[in-house]
Amino acid sequence: MISRPSRFPWWFRLLLLVAPATRLCAAEPTPADLMITHGHVVTMNDQREVFMDGVVVIRGSRLVAVGPAALATQYTAPKVIDARGALVLPGMINTHTHASMTVFRGLGDDVPDRLRRFIFPLEKALVDRDLVYWGGLHGIVEMIEGGVTTFVDMYYFEEEVARASRQAGMRAIVGQTIVNFPAPDAPEPYGGIARARQLITNLRGDPLITGALAPHAPYTVDATRLREIATLSAELDAPVLIHLAEMTDEVATLRKEHNQTPVEYLDALGLLNRRLVAAHCIFVNASDISLLHRRDAGVAHAMVANIKSAKGVSPVVQMEQAGVRVGLATDGPMSGNTLDVMGQLGYVAKVHKLDRKDRNVMPAVQVVELATRGGARALHREQELGSLEPGKLADVILVDVAATAMVPLYDPYAALVYAASPRDVRTTIIHGRIVMEDRRVLSGAGIPAAGPAGRVTRTPPCRRSNSLGISSM
Amino acid sequence: MISRPSRFPWWFRLLLLVAPATRLCAAEPTPADLMITHGHVVTMNDQREVFMDGVVVIRGSRLVAVGPAALATQYTAPKVIDARGALVLPGMINTHTHASMTVFRGLGDDVPDRLRRFIFPLEKALVDRDLVYWGGLHGIVEMIEGGVTTFVDMYYFEEEVARASRQAGMRAIVGQTIVNFPAPDAPEPYGGIARARQLITNLRGDPLITGALAPHAPYTVDATRLREIATLSAELDAPVLIHLAEMTDEVATLRKEHNQTPVEYLDALGLLNRRLVAAHCIFVNASDISLLHRRDAGVAHAMVANIKSAKGVSPVVQMEQAGVRVGLATDGPMSGNTLDVMGQLGYVAKVHKLDRKDRNVMPAVQVVELATRGGARALHREQELGSLEPGKLADVILVDVAATAMVPLYDPYAALVYAASPRDVRTTIIHGRIVMEDRRVLSGAGIPAAGPAGRVTRTPPCRRSNSLGISSM
Repeated sequence: MISRPSRFPWWFRLLLLVAPATRLCAAEPTPADLMITHGHVVTMNDQREVFMDGVVVIRGSRLVAVGPAALATQYTAPKVIDARGALVLPGMINTHTHASMTVFRGLGDDVPDRLRRFIFPLEKALVDRDLVYWGGLHGIVEMIEGGVTTFVDMYYFEEEVARASRQAGMRAIVGQTIVNFPAPDAPEPYGGIARARQLITNLRGDPLITGALAPHAPYTVDATRLREIATLSAELDAPVLIHLAEMTDEVATLRKEHNQTPVEYLDALGLLNRRLVAAHCIFVNASDISLLHRRDAGVAHAMVANIKSAKGVSPVVQMEQAGVRVGLATDGPMSGNTLDVMGQLGYVAKVHKLDRKDRNVMPAVQVVELATRGGARALHREQELGSLEPGKLADVILVDVAATAMVPLYDPYAALVYAASPRDVRTTIIHGRIVMEDRRVLSGAGIPAAGPAGRVTRTPPCRRSNSLGISSM
Repeated sequence: MISRPSRFPWWFRLLLLVAPATRLCAAEPTPADLMITHGHVVTMNDQREVFMDGVVVIRGSRLVAVGPAALATQYTAPKVIDARGALVLPGMINTHTHASMTVFRGLGDDVPDRLRRFIFPLEKALVDRDLVYWGGLHGIVEMIEGGVTTFVDMYYFEEEVARASRQAGMRAIVGQTIVNFPAPDAPEPYGGIARARQLITNLRGDPLITGALAPHAPYTVDATRLREIATLSAELDAPVLIHLAEMTDEVATLRKEHNQTPVEYLDALGLLNRRLVAAHCIFVNASDISLLHRRDAGVAHAMVANIKSAKGVSPVVQMEQAGVRVGLATDGPMSGNTLDVMGQLGYVAKVHKLDRKDRNVMPAVQVVELATRGGARALHREQELGSLEPGKLADVILVDVAATAMVPLYDPYAALVYAASPRDVRTTIIHGRIVMEDRRVLSGAGIPAAGPAGRVTRTPPCRRSNSLGISSM
């Protein structure tokens, strides 16, 4: 072949030479482990971005990309979930429950003084290691089916709840209960303190499960022990879980004996800090709310349990205005009956409207925020949980919107809050692992590991730049 | 063979002779059309009988027997439904809705003054015959899926709602709306009156669907027309449906102009009687409650819609004590979002407890009563609807209790009210016809007729007496 001088300038010939390589590099899809395509992706990121036909890409235990359909061409994964007809959301966070009490569900409804007449006696007679494990596993499966991907538990034999959580692939904070009377797992009053220390130490470094101290309430743990727990929590850097400002007699007693509100009382004992997750907080005034905010404590808002027991409505509208870290909670199945956070959404939206006599407060989007981002904030885990953003942990749920009662879908938040059922959750992913697919819960052995847990993943340097402005790690 | 004198007395030989015939007659099972076996039958009869392993027998459009498992041997039917793992209940009654508004579901949530800013303009712009039919059919399918077997509707072009109901095999009271402004189906103000008369007349004798007059509210229909409607209702013996005591400005205006409560105002106009079904009744005092009872009017309690709009809680605890006829209602899908009565149960139980500051009021059994017997009473149809009893119309639902969140099942009422989802309804039977089986909704053509509608059935004279004390027709 006869060579002839090119009629193109040198720089253009260089471009032609380089172009195929560029194209090759750009076209090479980045390997990932799991991809969710064609879903209606509700990110809950800072901009509350929603992608009508969106993609979520997971590598190992982390999200690596979240964006519109076009993103799918940039990744390849051995497992792709078609999310057509479903919302794709960050998993919901249940900030306070007693999962093992599923065995007592439906006992003692609609009766006065359940705690001392039914719960404590039932627990004394029946709670043992087996009950905690099996009841806990039952509750964890129920949560996975209902779209919960992280839960905060408080009970006896909490190492059994940790075992059940690990087996099911669930993310959990497990709090060993501490009480001033002989407990099913500790014959001596306050035996729970030593058990809690052990639990927290044993779980150190676990990617899914964190141990915690769980003093039952200000009326079942004395001031000396509460101070001791505060010190231990600081020493171990462990969360403290407690029932707070839930009972009228709790409020009355602390007022009489200490001239303090329950929130002030905990503050005086050194417990009101960023490691605290206080459940209920029904009886809190404006000054308490300000204190909760200044001390950066978390609040678990258990609306359904609180109204079913006729206790009252926690002033979460005001807490939200004050910037308090609030998440949603089901409480135990003897209090709220079910463990799915989805069942709380409608109540949170509507009962706050009733309580504030204002139909504009607590709009649907804010309720979904409480269930996701809010829960993450309450646990001081918002850097890695609560929204679908690259770099965060891959806790993702798919919620069907095909049900007759969910059609039409003008607003995904309104559909979730005012029309969805926990039975609509189709698939649940925790820490990058599919723990339920198409409503089939996968047992421990059956959970396909998307990649080594906690593996740090980086996108390769030649990854095509995202023309749609979607950030990806 | 050689005959020899019997060693038994003559009367014993006679008994031996007669016995096989008796046995034959007793063993001959009575023919029926449909049998539901092995369900956990919650009858809602006067004794609130529950059969853990129960049987429901249907012939034509009626129930012929309800009782324990042994009953099954006494009947034969071409179709037998195995209800293992399900509760069997009377169908639920939705005493107030606007089914066609499913097309607007999720529009205008969490905003002030929806009625005049969104609903009326949307209806003016969009409502026509087609929208009413298709939106209505969508809503009816949703209700069938959610366990509703009778609904009370109020909208425009109600003949289209009647058409959709008939097609789906649904039982309905369809109320033609009457308003003081030009409506989508009537260009002249109050054109609805003539349309209502026509509708009621056309539906006369229909076994499933009844026409009704539906003056929108005291603030959208003047006193003269309300009186005219009262007269027409008496003349046609037709139900009257209205929104009553729902709005604070309605209350204020009637107080100012007539010095009356909304209930007193309707009474003065001759509308407060046994043909009335008044929706909402939030702003009623003790004297109004007494008047509602004395006049024997029905009340449609729309808890979810009333709290979502921050209007308030209708004093149904007091109404129940006074003996007022109260049923549950979803209101339209722009108000309460979903049309299944099951979604109301938890709210009714819990919000009344909150409102009355008493965890003992409105126990689960009472809530299920409101959804079934209560609805029948509100419509003055308790002789044929609202419970599973021989002779009543065969409106029956099967609700799965296999969901993780429904286990264990200590109390069927608590499970229904505090844990069930409308998605748990497995099968729905209306007027003896299966309109949904195993969650598959059967279209009009697909509905298998169990027998001629309304056929009067009697058990044959040689039927074996029921040793278990279970009544059967």
